[in-house]
Amino acid sequence: MVTLEMIQEAQAALSGVIRKTPLVHAPRLGKNIYIKSENLQLTGAFKIRGAYNKIRSLTQAEAARGVIACSAGNHAQGIAYSAAKLGIKSIICMPASAPMSKVESTKAYGAEVVLVPGVYDDAAKAAERLKTEHDYTFAHPFNDPYVIAGQGTIGLEILEQLPDVQQIVVPIGGGGLISGLALAVKALKPDCRVIGVQAAGAASMYTSRLQGRPVELQSVATIADGIAVKKPGDLTFRLCQKYVDEIVTVTEGEIACAILQLIETQKTVAEGAGAAAVAAVLFEKVDTINHKTVCVVSGGNVDVTTLSRIITRGLSKSGRIVEITTKVTDRPGSLMQLLQVISDTGGNIVKIHHAREAQDSDVGACLVTMVVETRNQEHIHQIQQQLTEHGYYLLKH
Amino acid sequence: MVTLEMIQEAQAALSGVIRKTPLVHAPRLGKNIYIKSENLQLTGAFKIRGAYNKIRSLTQAEAARGVIACSAGNHAQGIAYSAAKLGIKSIICMPASAPMSKVESTKAYGAEVVLVPGVYDDAAKAAERLKTEHDYTFAHPFNDPYVIAGQGTIGLEILEQLPDVQQIVVPIGGGGLISGLALAVKALKPDCRVIGVQAAGAASMYTSRLQGRPVELQSVATIADGIAVKKPGDLTFRLCQKYVDEIVTVTEGEIACAILQLIETQKTVAEGAGAAAVAAVLFEKVDTINHKTVCVVSGGNVDVTTLSRIITRGLSKSGRIVEITTKVTDRPGSLMQLLQVISDTGGNIVKIHHAREAQDSDVGACLVTMVVETRNQEHIHQIQQQLTEHGYYLLKH
Repeated sequence: MVTLEMIQEAQAALSGVIRKTPLVHAPRLGKNIYIKSENLQLTGAFKIRGAYNKIRSLTQAEAARGVIACSAGNHAQGIAYSAAKLGIKSIICMPASAPMSKVESTKAYGAEVVLVPGVYDDAAKAAERLKTEHDYTFAHPFNDPYVIAGQGTIGLEILEQLPDVQQIVVPIGGGGLISGLALAVKALKPDCRVIGVQAAGAASMYTSRLQGRPVELQSVATIADGIAVKKPGDLTFRLCQKYVDEIVTVTEGEIACAILQLIETQKTVAEGAGAAAVAAVLFEKVDTINHKTVCVVSGGNVDVTTLSRIITRGLSKSGRIVEITTKVTDRPGSLMQLLQVISDTGGNIVKIHHAREAQDSDVGACLVTMVVETRNQEHIHQIQQQLTEHGYYLLKH
Repeated sequence: MVTLEMIQEAQAALSGVIRKTPLVHAPRLGKNIYIKSENLQLTGAFKIRGAYNKIRSLTQAEAARGVIACSAGNHAQGIAYSAAKLGIKSIICMPASAPMSKVESTKAYGAEVVLVPGVYDDAAKAAERLKTEHDYTFAHPFNDPYVIAGQGTIGLEILEQLPDVQQIVVPIGGGGLISGLALAVKALKPDCRVIGVQAAGAASMYTSRLQGRPVELQSVATIADGIAVKKPGDLTFRLCQKYVDEIVTVTEGEIACAILQLIETQKTVAEGAGAAAVAAVLFEKVDTINHKTVCVVSGGNVDVTTLSRIITRGLSKSGRIVEITTKVTDRPGSLMQLLQVISDTGGNIVKIHHAREAQDSDVGACLVTMVVETRNQEHIHQIQQQLTEHGYYLLKH
């Protein structure tokens, strides 16, 4: 059971521990769009709210045994920070495939990190085994009343910061954030809509809602690793059924675009999960024309080694770069002629690969792959048309 | 002449027009480090402060003639926004080489943009010619009392937001920002140090200070395009001589590292110029051990198509990726043997290029170039040592 009182209690307990993050108007994303910047939260994500609220609620006996958790990301950092702050030992099982930067951060916050070969599920099994062996106290990342109540404090903050909010858009992984937030908001302002967003490649709550019960997906795949959850919790599922108005999904390209837009217009860094709500609004999965809408940017812990790739993906999706592959005859001047066509259309070549020996090119032909900077989709279309008119055959990507 | 009163007047005039940007503690950058986030300012940079203050100070006759400015970046957007807000026509000469995104933004704010073939100096000449032809009012980007007074309002804000500040670190291009800021700060809190930072590749104020007069550099080259200025103004030079305690320089790699650190620890996006002050502090050009220090992050308008390159540069500088080129014999298994050595050291290969036909490889040898993800400089050294011990000759980059 989670109640409004538990969320209000959590807010009092968290005061002075976490940051009250900014809620800012973002007119360049849309007239009615506001951003709740939980990427600027301590540890870089909202997860610390639930983690701290859980750990401070442990009995002395539970706390004395030490806390164990399993996470590849933000829950790990939230638990590590909160446990250290409260003087409690924490052990975090992380998959060995987790980015170096997240492992280092978790250690730096004071946790004992156990790197488990394999992926998340392997780490979860290891955590379960260690918990039993050592009698540690387990801290679930979302399916826990105290964790949900902690996340719900974001709902209270939004209502304080923007009392006339009409709609709140929230990313969903396991459902801890939206469960607590929706409960708080519906209790205090029932006419405010709460809309959940999932990555299309990890739509477990979306699918569960369609089927009327928590469903486990076979596999999940998304750049939004923070919400790549195979199965929602039973508690979070029930709360979503009761309080969430609608759940929509966004594609990988839409998420990448949203990350790019947040960088360009808000100068702020979101991770994939953190940008999902913004993606839903930008790509009109959610109507904002007549609704003052808050998008929760839930976290900013994106590995910089992958950020470059995401930027490229976002540029591509928004028509600002395009990759074109065609064939030219293998003789002097033919590459130049191709480049002349591109240049005449105002495209700016940023990368080119010209290979004679490619297996799928005919004898006497070379494959040319170019990455071209463009203005928008229409510009790309013009370039492709000009190439076709000049007799170039365009290979599909 | 610029006075404290002019700056205070500017502050009153700007109130309600610009944003009071956050000043936040950034302990992950250093215990005593605070960030003044002018990258979150309207138009993405502090320049709007001076631009608006200049335009609102024009006589009716000057305003009626329309305002002309020359800029490849933030001044353009500041003038365009301010002129539109005050109902005045603006014409901005921009070099055709300016990033598409900045040209589009300037147009979107309502300016008439004149794209001039060539670089900044060509655009400046065009602006001068158009000014004379059409009798436009010229708005200089830095060497102007009203512009300087506008930028000085940042100094007043910092003193309000952090009254016990002991040191302020500020990027310098033409010197408008630091002149106004230092004048304000020294008038109200004379014991607070003000330190300027220039890119080593564009150190015109630094050089001028050494020589005791404004010096024009032959050329400037830096990723911090916002502070790539060949010659400081006479007014800004005099004010710097009078009020600035020290000027230091930072390298391109240091700036790239600072951009990376701001993304990773602050989740905020700075352009090259905007990260210069943080670079100076991170690389200990400025002592912060016993000084509560504010770094002015002056802007965030970095072209995303170049941001990826900067991230790569920053990862390289901080030892988190390394490019290694070596030779292997041209026979089955030799590439695999090389990869085994890398794998044993814990390096993660993110890119590899293996070419038989490279001109500078011996017959019977192939050149292999690898980009390897690493933990730090020490880790890179270990990998290089292991490769050498296994008989691989490492080519210099």
